[in-house]
Amino acid sequence: MPTVEVISVGTELLLGQILNTHGQYLGRELAALGLDLYYQTSVGDNRARVIQAFARAWERSDVVILTGGLGPTDDDLTKEAVAGFLGLELIEDAASRRWLDKFFARRGRRMTPNNLKQATLPQGAKALPNPNGTAPGVLLETGGKAAIMLPGPPAELLPMFADHVRPYLIERWGGGRTVIVSRVLRLCGIGESDAETRVKDILTRQGNPTIAPLASGGEVTFRLTAKATTPAEGSVLLDQAEAEMRGRLGQHIYGLDQQTLSDVVGDQMTRASLTIALAESCTGGLIGHQLTQRPGSSDYFRLGVIAYANEAKTAALGVPAEVIRDHGAVSEETALAMALGVRRVAGTDMALATTGIAGPGGGTPDKPVGLVYGALVWPGGEDVRRWDFIGGRQHIKERAAFAALTMLWDHLKGLRQTGGVAGKDGTGAGAGV
Amino acid sequence: MPTVEVISVGTELLLGQILNTHGQYLGRELAALGLDLYYQTSVGDNRARVIQAFARAWERSDVVILTGGLGPTDDDLTKEAVAGFLGLELIEDAASRRWLDKFFARRGRRMTPNNLKQATLPQGAKALPNPNGTAPGVLLETGGKAAIMLPGPPAELLPMFADHVRPYLIERWGGGRTVIVSRVLRLCGIGESDAETRVKDILTRQGNPTIAPLASGGEVTFRLTAKATTPAEGSVLLDQAEAEMRGRLGQHIYGLDQQTLSDVVGDQMTRASLTIALAESCTGGLIGHQLTQRPGSSDYFRLGVIAYANEAKTAALGVPAEVIRDHGAVSEETALAMALGVRRVAGTDMALATTGIAGPGGGTPDKPVGLVYGALVWPGGEDVRRWDFIGGRQHIKERAAFAALTMLWDHLKGLRQTGGVAGKDGTGAGAGV
Repeated sequence: MPTVEVISVGTELLLGQILNTHGQYLGRELAALGLDLYYQTSVGDNRARVIQAFARAWERSDVVILTGGLGPTDDDLTKEAVAGFLGLELIEDAASRRWLDKFFARRGRRMTPNNLKQATLPQGAKALPNPNGTAPGVLLETGGKAAIMLPGPPAELLPMFADHVRPYLIERWGGGRTVIVSRVLRLCGIGESDAETRVKDILTRQGNPTIAPLASGGEVTFRLTAKATTPAEGSVLLDQAEAEMRGRLGQHIYGLDQQTLSDVVGDQMTRASLTIALAESCTGGLIGHQLTQRPGSSDYFRLGVIAYANEAKTAALGVPAEVIRDHGAVSEETALAMALGVRRVAGTDMALATTGIAGPGGGTPDKPVGLVYGALVWPGGEDVRRWDFIGGRQHIKERAAFAALTMLWDHLKGLRQTGGVAGKDGTGAGAGV
Repeated sequence: MPTVEVISVGTELLLGQILNTHGQYLGRELAALGLDLYYQTSVGDNRARVIQAFARAWERSDVVILTGGLGPTDDDLTKEAVAGFLGLELIEDAASRRWLDKFFARRGRRMTPNNLKQATLPQGAKALPNPNGTAPGVLLETGGKAAIMLPGPPAELLPMFADHVRPYLIERWGGGRTVIVSRVLRLCGIGESDAETRVKDILTRQGNPTIAPLASGGEVTFRLTAKATTPAEGSVLLDQAEAEMRGRLGQHIYGLDQQTLSDVVGDQMTRASLTIALAESCTGGLIGHQLTQRPGSSDYFRLGVIAYANEAKTAALGVPAEVIRDHGAVSEETALAMALGVRRVAGTDMALATTGIAGPGGGTPDKPVGLVYGALVWPGGEDVRRWDFIGGRQHIKERAAFAALTMLWDHLKGLRQTGGVAGKDGTGAGAGV
């Protein structure tokens, strides 16, 4: 089985100034391709030490992937070190040069001589296009081995790996005899211990696939990991394990792998041709931001109002001043009035509202920091929920946005299961606080 | 200066199942002690490969720290590999054995023969107590070098490092004579190459502090790193270097270290007692989300409108339908009308608007994906800007939010510098497209 080795270049890694997340990403990707990764090394921006690390890796592995050090500054020396070690000259690549020219022209910025070095490649190497930055990646095959150099910023590295390196590794290095594949199940509307208790016997059974809970920033997730001889066989094993998990927890599994709850509800609304408006108080725009991460979200998301001040709740949403006076801005009644108000302005099928106390200030014994109300309205129905979150301001905002989207997911799922006419279903599961 | 090397042992690291956070923790700690760390390696639970990695590290470094592989299973072989390579026997350590006996007795669990191996140490080594688990750490000094083995779980490793390893490193390897401190300068309103060109002579000068650009998700940042004998002395060195950088780039430096642009403009608005409203189209709520990450943001942020659909721009913001018809939803005129509209509704001092094409769909030759307009209005003045971003949808949203906040920062800074009365200054720097 071909062996791959990863070298992360960057003094900031060794000083602990940034976390090496590429190591994890590449490890996972290579495992999924069935390629053996035996060593990962981090080394600073020092020519002699980059060469030392590369020489060692080149000697014992078939493919060496280097990350970082492709930028325009003198500190960026990955290409120079590898080319120097292999006795190759760096020559300008015409296509990369054209890309750089265009990149700078569009921005009306001047190219410096340092930028030009980003358009150079070791003799015989191929450029990997970088739509998200100025540094192309480098693919160099020589002597039956391959060196692959990728830019450090995750926004550049991840798409470049997915679009160019993964297909190349499959095509040229064939994957191995054993593949390790994994799948993540993502849950909403259930707590971590509750979820684990329901599948305790499955978790403790040491089978293939293995199933383990995965700490994931407040979300409840499980990772299924299978060993197989082919990805297809691995996929079947994962399907079986997923089916077993769905038997216990199906009503809470909203998605797989990298899917987000906002993408999943976006798919549901697109399929059902439903539109939505938002009235956000304590979430401050986060739900709007999440919904609009999905391409095509303008099909269902029409209007959001971030009504941070009480006067804004009245002026922009028509929340009656006496509702706020009698029940408070953080109340079931205000949440519902916000949702009804924004639906009236936007003329959408549904509307979702949040109001709460994100902290650290603003809490009272009656209404402590972390108290949040969510309201969802649809033609003929409504759902209002109350949550008590614990944690810092940013955590509370995130949990509130997730809980509000969970309300929406519950409603849309209910529509599908009952076969209710889209947007006309008046029986909201979980209505009431 | 003594050199230290870190080897993380664990197949789960190479498979990407867990993130290597020890690397960052140890890197930061060693830097703070002034010890040089040139390489970090991750290797799987394989005896031959652990030995290979250790042999290399032992040859080139004074101190080798290994993490992981001290557990009771057959997979745990760090001690065995190191002792084997150095030709030392593993012998039972009486104190560790007593600790294990007590540990299991307290929990009413039976010890397995495998557990017993956790009480063994290479000849001549010293056990490092582990109050949080069954595996003691190992400190082995031989031939003028030191090998330090620490358990993998963070809850065990972190206190063991702090309580036993850090004091040992200071005492024996003279850490403490040099410290490494760093500071990050964060810039806005300038491109990476342009910024670097202005300080090229400073960057290429290999002094103390060293100054290097740091790729940081689209933001332009520089890291200053100083070596000194005390943190206070380091701080003075950083102050001097920062002053020199400010001389060249001061008008673009908005913050330090972990400060965000949205926090900085929040501070400025609080000081100036100014309020703001937002009208977001392509940024979809992201600016609102960022502004509301700061505690106390309700003092200045009153209302945000996420006007995703054209009808919403008209209904909620009063943008005249003919402006959209004549100039398009993505235009200077619409951006300005959105800002004026939301200010009218919210009654704030200022308003900030964005409209653009985040993609991947919706672009035309005239108005390509990535084209974004921003508008800022204040009493008696306005600023409208046009940007052309390149990249994926999420990247474009982030760049647009950052550029819009940069407009706001520029304006607020101008108020302070000209001594203009807050909110009454009619001369916007950079007004016009």
